[in-house]
Amino acid sequence: MKEKILMMLKQNKDEFLSGEKISHEFGVSRSAIWKYMNALKEEGYIIESIPRKGYRLISSPDILTYGEIEEYLITDFIGRNIYYFDSVSSTNIKAKEIAPKEQEGTIIIAEEQTKGKGRLGRNWTSPKGKGIWMSIILKPKVDPTKVAKITLIGAAAVNQGLKDIGINSYIKWPNDIVINGKKVCGILTEMSCELNMINYCIMGMGINVNLDKDDFDEELSKKATSLKTITGNTVDRKKLLAYILNHFEELYIPFKEKGDISKTIEISKDNSILIGKEVRIIRGELEKVGRVLDIDEEGQLIVEYENGKVEEIFSGEVSVRGIEGYI
Amino acid sequence: MKEKILMMLKQNKDEFLSGEKISHEFGVSRSAIWKYMNALKEEGYIIESIPRKGYRLISSPDILTYGEIEEYLITDFIGRNIYYFDSVSSTNIKAKEIAPKEQEGTIIIAEEQTKGKGRLGRNWTSPKGKGIWMSIILKPKVDPTKVAKITLIGAAAVNQGLKDIGINSYIKWPNDIVINGKKVCGILTEMSCELNMINYCIMGMGINVNLDKDDFDEELSKKATSLKTITGNTVDRKKLLAYILNHFEELYIPFKEKGDISKTIEISKDNSILIGKEVRIIRGELEKVGRVLDIDEEGQLIVEYENGKVEEIFSGEVSVRGIEGYI
Repeated sequence: MKEKILMMLKQNKDEFLSGEKISHEFGVSRSAIWKYMNALKEEGYIIESIPRKGYRLISSPDILTYGEIEEYLITDFIGRNIYYFDSVSSTNIKAKEIAPKEQEGTIIIAEEQTKGKGRLGRNWTSPKGKGIWMSIILKPKVDPTKVAKITLIGAAAVNQGLKDIGINSYIKWPNDIVINGKKVCGILTEMSCELNMINYCIMGMGINVNLDKDDFDEELSKKATSLKTITGNTVDRKKLLAYILNHFEELYIPFKEKGDISKTIEISKDNSILIGKEVRIIRGELEKVGRVLDIDEEGQLIVEYENGKVEEIFSGEVSVRGIEGYI
Repeated sequence: MKEKILMMLKQNKDEFLSGEKISHEFGVSRSAIWKYMNALKEEGYIIESIPRKGYRLISSPDILTYGEIEEYLITDFIGRNIYYFDSVSSTNIKAKEIAPKEQEGTIIIAEEQTKGKGRLGRNWTSPKGKGIWMSIILKPKVDPTKVAKITLIGAAAVNQGLKDIGINSYIKWPNDIVINGKKVCGILTEMSCELNMINYCIMGMGINVNLDKDDFDEELSKKATSLKTITGNTVDRKKLLAYILNHFEELYIPFKEKGDISKTIEISKDNSILIGKEVRIIRGELEKVGRVLDIDEEGQLIVEYENGKVEEIFSGEVSVRGIEGYI
């Protein structure tokens, strides 16, 4: 109900909405409306209220609630059920707790993660209100070995969402988004499965949106940056989040229904930072140097080694690093 | 401490142990000992206590606590930390709750499961005190694609544990144990993982030990039976459980350390009910008839179809059924 009233306020931004009109529209009492208005004010909404005229929305806070992103969302099921938190240990941990009983497309969003996690147990800096820290719950009826493809879909969706707000980025196969040679987004896909059935899959995304330079320590600032640092401007987190979810659903549906990731592969190739580059391929203690030739239709990285041997690399099996520096 | 006192009572079954001696051995007060004795009595231990002579263990209850299986256990880490419950929804569900923070080899055992689960969400009948309903928490540092091999290790361990108590059984690749054409044990392996790292793996085992005929409904009794029904005798659950854990650890260590499952494959082949048989291979809606030729060194089932084509089947990818009936 709170969200419905908020939506009505947003649709009537230039005029006063009388309590009577709201009461009539939703069939709730005037005193209930007054309580909802106070709840909205507590969340950071600035609402003017004048006796006998009614209520008017002056401004909305910079928060990633469903009420704030709904107007940009064109999805069917991705992001239509959002659990929003001010602070959590990690959105993936929270998502794993609720995933068994939630429907596909449910999202956990937090303004802050106190124990944000990257791949292989690494930390992920997630300061309050400055990033998009979220996890999407998915339940595709595919073999667990196919789940690596979902990471590619996620990376492609972030790349396309950034493009929608005018920011060009590169995809570092399989799970990072890179601008100016530094990481702006990482994806951590986890799953719970039986031998031939996925119970659920959690796609965690950390996007460094409005972090300032001093949010990164010295070591991290060599490898990571934020959209704000790159563009010099504060970026609209709400639009970016919604656009990413829109692209994600568009790319995910053909995968879920037919195993088709052709559009994702096209985006992955067009925006790849690895194709054509010399890279180090790291498998545990072993390291080999090769050149990335392509990404194939299954999403595998095709690498040619110095001895001319060509290998198809299955996502996740190895780490790929540039010859010099991070990329 | 309770377990240490129990162990001492067991080691001195034919004589009275004075409170003074126990007190001296463990450095606890006489009144504390009295409390531990009462706790043991509540668990079903029958303990004689005579003033000025002391305590004597008359009999132990039929429960699968650590105190009861310890004397048969020769493992290093499998089953050395046991969470024992009178009743749980499912040991796999319980195991998933605690797995993130538990060490490898920790086991959940319950006398009863109210929502015992088989593969693909099927039910598993688990009446109180009549079976071995347990889940082992494992954290092997191997690629998630290798986890199917752990199911084969589990099946081989059950087969060998049964042999130790004089019961011959067949392994129905990949996850069932069969006697007289009916199922006596099923294994449900689940895992939580990232792309190239297992967070944890849960191996759930349900063994129909002392179930009576009327524990199975009519439909189930066509497919499943119990060791008691087969042998005509009540089977010692404690020994069987410990022997299975002993074999499991012996077969699991080479896998964990070197990826070596050669001994498991040997057992799987020697005791296979499928090799040489005609089977139906079921993939979703599709069904094909073929003959099982072998199990290869990677644990894959080798099947030859009627048209002469030979296929290697990866565990879990398909269901295998006999031409007539269950097997």
